[in-house]
Amino acid sequence: MEVKSITEQKSLLATLSPGKRARLRRLLFDYGPGNGTLMLLPIDQGIEHGPRDFFPNPASKDPEYQFRLAAEAGYSAIACQIGLATRYYPDYAGQLPLILKLNGKTDIPPSDEALSTTNASVEDAVRLGADAVGYTLYVGSPRQDADLLQLKGVRAECERYGMPLVVWSYPRGAAMEAKGGRDSFYAIDYGARMAMEMGADVVKLNFPKFDPEKDKDSPAPYNEMDVTPEEAVRQIVESAGRSLVVLSGGSKTDDETVLAHTRTIMEAGGSGVIFGRNVWQRDWDEALAIIEQIKASLLANVRRTP
Amino acid sequence: MEVKSITEQKSLLATLSPGKRARLRRLLFDYGPGNGTLMLLPIDQGIEHGPRDFFPNPASKDPEYQFRLAAEAGYSAIACQIGLATRYYPDYAGQLPLILKLNGKTDIPPSDEALSTTNASVEDAVRLGADAVGYTLYVGSPRQDADLLQLKGVRAECERYGMPLVVWSYPRGAAMEAKGGRDSFYAIDYGARMAMEMGADVVKLNFPKFDPEKDKDSPAPYNEMDVTPEEAVRQIVESAGRSLVVLSGGSKTDDETVLAHTRTIMEAGGSGVIFGRNVWQRDWDEALAIIEQIKASLLANVRRTP
Amino acid sequence: MEVKSITEQKSLLATLSPGKRARLRRLLFDYGPGNGTLMLLPIDQGIEHGPRDFFPNPASKDPEYQFRLAAEAGYSAIACQIGLATRYYPDYAGQLPLILKLNGKTDIPPSDEALSTTNASVEDAVRLGADAVGYTLYVGSPRQDADLLQLKGVRAECERYGMPLVVWSYPRGAAMEAKGGRDSFYAIDYGARMAMEMGADVVKLNFPKFDPEKDKDSPAPYNEMDVTPEEAVRQIVESAGRSLVVLSGGSKTDDETVLAHTRTIMEAGGSGVIFGRNVWQRDWDEALAIIEQIKASLLANVRRTP
Amino acid sequence: MEVKSITEQKSLLATLSPGKRARLRRLLFDYGPGNGTLMLLPIDQGIEHGPRDFFPNPASKDPEYQFRLAAEAGYSAIACQIGLATRYYPDYAGQLPLILKLNGKTDIPPSDEALSTTNASVEDAVRLGADAVGYTLYVGSPRQDADLLQLKGVRAECERYGMPLVVWSYPRGAAMEAKGGRDSFYAIDYGARMAMEMGADVVKLNFPKFDPEKDKDSPAPYNEMDVTPEEAVRQIVESAGRSLVVLSGGSKTDDETVLAHTRTIMEAGGSGVIFGRNVWQRDWDEALAIIEQIKASLLANVRRTP
Amino acid sequence: MEVKSITEQKSLLATLSPGKRARLRRLLFDYGPGNGTLMLLPIDQGIEHGPRDFFPNPASKDPEYQFRLAAEAGYSAIACQIGLATRYYPDYAGQLPLILKLNGKTDIPPSDEALSTTNASVEDAVRLGADAVGYTLYVGSPRQDADLLQLKGVRAECERYGMPLVVWSYPRGAAMEAKGGRDSFYAIDYGARMAMEMGADVVKLNFPKFDPEKDKDSPAPYNEMDVTPEEAVRQIVESAGRSLVVLSGGSKTDDETVLAHTRTIMEAGGSGVIFGRNVWQRDWDEALAIIEQIKASLLANVRRTP
Repeated sequence: MEVKSITEQKSLLATLSPGKRARLRRLLFDYGPGNGTLMLLPIDQGIEHGPRDFFPNPASKDPEYQFRLAAEAGYSAIACQIGLATRYYPDYAGQLPLILKLNGKTDIPPSDEALSTTNASVEDAVRLGADAVGYTLYVGSPRQDADLLQLKGVRAECERYGMPLVVWSYPRGAAMEAKGGRDSFYAIDYGARMAMEMGADVVKLNFPKFDPEKDKDSPAPYNEMDVTPEEAVRQIVESAGRSLVVLSGGSKTDDETVLAHTRTIMEAGGSGVIFGRNVWQRDWDEALAIIEQIKASLLANVRRTP
Repeated sequence: MEVKSITEQKSLLATLSPGKRARLRRLLFDYGPGNGTLMLLPIDQGIEHGPRDFFPNPASKDPEYQFRLAAEAGYSAIACQIGLATRYYPDYAGQLPLILKLNGKTDIPPSDEALSTTNASVEDAVRLGADAVGYTLYVGSPRQDADLLQLKGVRAECERYGMPLVVWSYPRGAAMEAKGGRDSFYAIDYGARMAMEMGADVVKLNFPKFDPEKDKDSPAPYNEMDVTPEEAVRQIVESAGRSLVVLSGGSKTDDETVLAHTRTIMEAGGSGVIFGRNVWQRDWDEALAIIEQIKASLLANVRRTP
Repeated sequence: MEVKSITEQKSLLATLSPGKRARLRRLLFDYGPGNGTLMLLPIDQGIEHGPRDFFPNPASKDPEYQFRLAAEAGYSAIACQIGLATRYYPDYAGQLPLILKLNGKTDIPPSDEALSTTNASVEDAVRLGADAVGYTLYVGSPRQDADLLQLKGVRAECERYGMPLVVWSYPRGAAMEAKGGRDSFYAIDYGARMAMEMGADVVKLNFPKFDPEKDKDSPAPYNEMDVTPEEAVRQIVESAGRSLVVLSGGSKTDDETVLAHTRTIMEAGGSGVIFGRNVWQRDWDEALAIIEQIKASLLANVRRTP
Repeated sequence: MEVKSITEQKSLLATLSPGKRARLRRLLFDYGPGNGTLMLLPIDQGIEHGPRDFFPNPASKDPEYQFRLAAEAGYSAIACQIGLATRYYPDYAGQLPLILKLNGKTDIPPSDEALSTTNASVEDAVRLGADAVGYTLYVGSPRQDADLLQLKGVRAECERYGMPLVVWSYPRGAAMEAKGGRDSFYAIDYGARMAMEMGADVVKLNFPKFDPEKDKDSPAPYNEMDVTPEEAVRQIVESAGRSLVVLSGGSKTDDETVLAHTRTIMEAGGSGVIFGRNVWQRDWDEALAIIEQIKASLLANVRRTP
Repeated sequence: MEVKSITEQKSLLATLSPGKRARLRRLLFDYGPGNGTLMLLPIDQGIEHGPRDFFPNPASKDPEYQFRLAAEAGYSAIACQIGLATRYYPDYAGQLPLILKLNGKTDIPPSDEALSTTNASVEDAVRLGADAVGYTLYVGSPRQDADLLQLKGVRAECERYGMPLVVWSYPRGAAMEAKGGRDSFYAIDYGARMAMEMGADVVKLNFPKFDPEKDKDSPAPYNEMDVTPEEAVRQIVESAGRSLVVLSGGSKTDDETVLAHTRTIMEAGGSGVIFGRNVWQRDWDEALAIIEQIKASLLANVRRTP
């Protein structure tokens, strides 16, 4: 199947207000690998999963670890919740851009009806000198009504303050599971479009997984498609339209996969990666080593300058 | 059965505030086919159904396709959500009127208790230079309480800013399905009246379907009526009173049906059509061809000048 | 059983603020039959039941029918929702008082947990030049918590603007059905008191129905009472205290019943009637004929001047 | 079991703001029996139970009966909802203090998840010249979350306007019933503490009932306590701390019980009584007679001057 | 397992706004044992459990007991709800710091879906001269969405007024019970991190309990860990990062346990203790005696000066 774009990809930044443009350019060009790429370090696992994610590398339990790593390794930005931003970011203010994550939840109750309410505001982000805010949208959750309404308020505040909006677009809920699952091509593709339609400036997506058994439950034509992962990622990036796309990594995997995913997203026209556990579950030197490789891969594969 | 109107149909525009009148006249007379007709292009399927609707014509996945099509083919307006309006409308501002759709949802969870919360505001529409807003009302949903209350706020803002209100009036929910289904004459007729009673300036309705088995479950007298589709549409337009009516098309069908529906709605006193997939699931030249025919049909069958 | 009132019925108008008094006097004395009576024409069936109520008299589908009827026959006021008030009332402004109905719902889902949210505001009523607002309270519904809270806001706005409040006091819900049903003497009597306690200036009630089988389920002493309908209505009017009472008619019945109910409510100390289908489901001349008889009956049986 | 207080009971009035003190002193000293006592007449049964409570004394159906009774018999205050306060209180303004009850509900649906939303505001009370507001708190209801949040708003408004807050503290809900029931010593004792902790100036409590079978289900040590009713009431008054306590009567009982309860609450350090049906379900002369006896008992047994 | 911190523990106070720093320093250095420790006296059991907690020491039923005890024994602060703060704190204002607890609930309904709504505001705390506010967060409850959103508002107000925020971080709910229970190392560790991430200045935690059977249900690696209680507490304190940690005691236990827990929390880098029933369920002299020992232990084991 051939997907054609009627026009050459237009600059995203061209449609942004001055405030959004100023802040997003900072992440894309002034920090991190530069050249229009995004290398983001997320440290929201402490709330989403609890401290259990820190045991493989006990040093990572101290948030200072991730902040110092992001600063020293030259990240585009660090993404965290209000508590870390308040207590650990001050030492790095002016040296490392901040993406303030506005909502989140524990994974203790089941996620059949997932909804993350906001625990911080865009105004908090402005006050802390953040360059963007993050919002987790549970695409397809039965509580999408509350989710979309809440996102409306966040988006409006972002426009008011010229603050870029990064959407963690996560398919969730029982109905989603019955249609191929949260990681299917169908799910991720829908998530990409949804985030763009809702006004995301940057969309964070998971790498799609292919499972012939489960994929049969996806709606047509996904249930019968036979595409390579690379092609799927390319289509997903297309679905996000003029929103930038960053790919996330999930649980820790091997170096080859990390780098392959980085290459795939960039070749598909994406703007970068947001790997957390794959980076900071390593000890300091190993972390720096993989970061250098990721950075090199990002710069080597830029297809689209925003 | 003969339906008589006590008075000749009064001008809708006569009862509108200056702001609403100025904006609606623009759609009816300055853009599109003109002469009081409405030819609207909806591109909200990416949120309502996901990217799967774009596969039959891969070019349509890029929203630029629909925007350019609407502008070049001379549409009365394009209707889309906030994300597209923010990123794709700027290039067409001043050349193509915009209807900002204010609510929407994915179709991933079941629609037994359908409710679309707003993801954008009337103020967003004003800021973007839109000439109308769109709102989806799920008539008969168990959550009509939340829906009607939300619509109240949208309508009040429309009055405040002189913004025309287009209501996508969609019968939904388990109780509706038990009374003949969402597409029955009963359902569509109720939807038409409901939207008008709630203050819609324009009502978007689906073409009713007749199913002898299911229609028996509709309340009297619908359960025993034997009317032609043309007569049903005529009555539905009457139920919408002084609100303008546009008919929508649903999934892609053949040319004859598209044109027949166009003729039917116009002969019934409606104001136009809002076909999406039936248009942009075609490639560029085919799309332009059918649009020309629709336009001709609209102009040839005007019964009522608003 | 003899019910004694410790004082002669005090004037309701005496306790009203100037704004409420000015507007209510207009309905009671300047329009309609006058002499302190209320003859109200409701046209909210299009939302509460859908267009099916208009088929017996197809002309009634056009709201112009009811507006013209109310104006020409000399009604105290017409009661309708925001859509009709916006599009059909302007031609009659200054010639026919308007009661803007603020809430409503379709009858598509079951009414076990009935709640009508507002779709218009008291401020809308002020803007439209209305002389009163209407509110449907579902007495005994499991959602009475939301209902009473919402009514609080409406009542407060009515006090703020000097706008009379008419409460459609309707017993509803599964628990109500288990205690004798929505039309029982117990139910209507409770509804009358409830509306008065919540601050209604005028209470709209249904005529109670007696059903020996179901009445046994009412709480004492209703389950053992043996009263005539006339006596029941008299007690219900007493339960409404210093609120005015108008009786509604429900579905279409014969002339004798209409006129008997009119006489009964007036002899019981009520202030008038609000018949809809019983009037406008007739053709024009028949409608005018029954209206004249109702009007005569109202004026002939005034027991209490407000 | 001996309960000792570390300090002598401190004056409640000493901790009140000037506005609360001025208003509460009026009830305690200027009206009613005086000498720091409270004799309150509630007339909220019309909403809580419906008109059925008025049948034993038909004259009581007219609210004028209770207002005149309260004024002529010299009550400390009358407590009622907004409707009665608006229509019946004006004639007594300046002659009889008013406690405006802010929330309430019908008893038609079951009370497993009881919650009374507000139907009037503290501002209404100020406007009407009331000297206190009343709030029903359903202690232990599964909806305590909504209840306590709502009470927070009422309390804050009371502080803003210097308006005394009377809490009807009623144990309710399925869980409460499973722990000995709403009238158990455990339930009433918890209710007393809860109301005081939430900021009540006056707490209205029911007389506890003892039922050896059900009391076994109360938590320790209540499930094994063997106390006299007098001792229980004394402890309950202690649990209310520096809040004043008034005891309510419930359904009509004999004179001896009424007077015994009055004596018990006063000897326990309470401040008075709030008997409704026990008073106004009697005819005029009988009502005045029992009121005189209650008043005498109140004055004869004052243990604590507020 | 060894947990290393990349940096020496940084001063918490260094990241606080002037208002928070001024108030928190007062508790840490000017009152209580001083030297950066916190000895807090909670008296919220009257709402959380009811008066039953007061029976072991009847004198404790009078809140004056706890207030006088806290003042005379030299506590860092007393923590209570709005009712006690309003009526009992005035005599101690300026002599004993106050932590106003903002939310709470009875324990009558089950805690499967625990949520404590606020019954007082940060503004109340400011008005009363409090030096901190307390908030109970039910970590892992299915209603975490409402809880976190509510906490957002409290935190924002704390920042606005420079008011320190103490979070009672309590794992709760059916899902939590299925993963090892509310007192497991996993649960408490998650609670510590969660409170810090949400912006707590001080976190109140329960002492973890070890139960080999239930711990198997905790997520990895907790389900297989074999750590001493001391090590677990040390890790929990680490999880709270730069938030101060105080350990609570729960129901009354023996002196040795009280003192051992005090030593454990201090050696782990915590800042103090908050024992309620373990102190005020003793009579006056016994209470003073154990307080002296706790105080000595706190001062003897300071590891970290805030």
